[in-house]
Amino acid sequence: MGVLQTAKGIRVITTIGEIKEVITKVKRQGKTIGFVPTMGYLHEGHLTLMRKAAAKTDFVVASIFVNPLQFGVGEDFEEYPRDLERDVRLAESAGVSLIFAPGVAEMYPDGYGTTVEVTRLTDRLCGRSRPGHFRGVTTVVTKLFNIIEPDIAFFGQKDAQQAVVLRKMAADLNMNLEIEIVPIVREPDGLAMSSRNKYLDPEERKAALVLSKALLLAKNLINSGARNTADLKREVTGFIGREPKARIDYVDILSFPGLEEIENVSGQVIIALAVFIGDTRLIDNVVLEVD
Amino acid sequence: MGVLQTAKGIRVITTIGEIKEVITKVKRQGKTIGFVPTMGYLHEGHLTLMRKAAAKTDFVVASIFVNPLQFGVGEDFEEYPRDLERDVRLAESAGVSLIFAPGVAEMYPDGYGTTVEVTRLTDRLCGRSRPGHFRGVTTVVTKLFNIIEPDIAFFGQKDAQQAVVLRKMAADLNMNLEIEIVPIVREPDGLAMSSRNKYLDPEERKAALVLSKALLLAKNLINSGARNTADLKREVTGFIGREPKARIDYVDILSFPGLEEIENVSGQVIIALAVFIGDTRLIDNVVLEVD
Repeated sequence: MGVLQTAKGIRVITTIGEIKEVITKVKRQGKTIGFVPTMGYLHEGHLTLMRKAAAKTDFVVASIFVNPLQFGVGEDFEEYPRDLERDVRLAESAGVSLIFAPGVAEMYPDGYGTTVEVTRLTDRLCGRSRPGHFRGVTTVVTKLFNIIEPDIAFFGQKDAQQAVVLRKMAADLNMNLEIEIVPIVREPDGLAMSSRNKYLDPEERKAALVLSKALLLAKNLINSGARNTADLKREVTGFIGREPKARIDYVDILSFPGLEEIENVSGQVIIALAVFIGDTRLIDNVVLEVD
Repeated sequence: MGVLQTAKGIRVITTIGEIKEVITKVKRQGKTIGFVPTMGYLHEGHLTLMRKAAAKTDFVVASIFVNPLQFGVGEDFEEYPRDLERDVRLAESAGVSLIFAPGVAEMYPDGYGTTVEVTRLTDRLCGRSRPGHFRGVTTVVTKLFNIIEPDIAFFGQKDAQQAVVLRKMAADLNMNLEIEIVPIVREPDGLAMSSRNKYLDPEERKAALVLSKALLLAKNLINSGARNTADLKREVTGFIGREPKARIDYVDILSFPGLEEIENVSGQVIIALAVFIGDTRLIDNVVLEVD
């Protein structure tokens, strides 16, 4: 079985065999395929990716799969929010043609044992805090790319390191697709959209603004002429430190997309943050072009 | 440029960009693509793969690439025999339509950093003797599969563990192709065909028969009722040990294709050998169905 159908007609497929059949038919019709991989619990950031995909390709597939391989021990794989029914409705409204929502055993059957790893770019930022995380991401995305065979895959700039790592993987392995990175979508008050924002209680929700405000501070300092990354990181760290509910995982300023350490900001740079607000780990970033 | 052409018209392409263009055209014509990856210095074993590919698919691509990633420190990457002109002639005679012969920098440009790894099946046999070897194989084959996009890829049973590992990789990563394994081709006296046979001096060439003879011994013992793998391995090891030019790397009897240790032979099993004859490491195997 593995096929659900909503009133309006969007299909939810849960098996690899069935979705490959659909993909083969779609390709035979000469249609281009856009792909938006997600872990579900969709928000406006995901929907922006889907609308973009619908504008650029003929047939949009979204996947909803909370990938155990990219969660570490003690991370939130079990609690990660899930709501397939709501997701299907939202995806449909954003122009998605088909949803692929496999179970864990469908993606990683007994005896599964193959990994894809980008050995560069993954030892810093989130890769340092979450060992194995990017190997989990590159492995599942390789599988999904082979299953969906998209012409263009869409990822959010919110996970900036993920975007860079996936582009590197696709280039290194000569994959036959484009990867398009879509800007961060924010709440009206500046908080970057994230499924994990759901974990925040009202006090934490207010405290979480410290991330976007810290990035704005760094941007303003740079616009005022600050260039030394150590000084800038000290300012940002101090600013976040004044929020009692915040605990810094990392504050970094690196070249972009190379993610190299730099002494002074110059050219294209990324300011990237990971901060725990209570027990919830949030990330945010801004990419700047500096003269 | 990157394109050579022989008198009869077979093309040799050395760049990924150019071969992808050709592949796109071939696919647009609705032709099926057969693929035979090799490290060149072709022998009858390779040609058998190519003829098989030509019989089963519309357009056969052979790659010739001595892949540095699958050679360990102190192994024979530098000395591995190469003769592109001869290979092109032979491949053409075996029904190949196109040869892809990239340089190392084309496959692994500066900054290259992505690997594909099968974590099961690779810790035994050649994987134990040659750490990193299979990671090099699975990485280059993933790249080649993405570049050539074959419907069927052909590999030889001589590299039995490689065949099993690649099938596992293709299944785990949901690759869109079939992998066909073609039986070992032997010299009239029983020596399995290998590009490395070229390294053998006349005395070593004679001594090298110890591999196929040892397999025959094991097969005869099993046909006569022997079942205990420890006993069988002892017999085979003793037999090879009586050849002064031979030094055993491994002698193993495992389930096939699972490659699990077994106490008694039963069901489908592989007897696999790696033996140094002088400085040359040779491998051979036989797969048996045992009642």
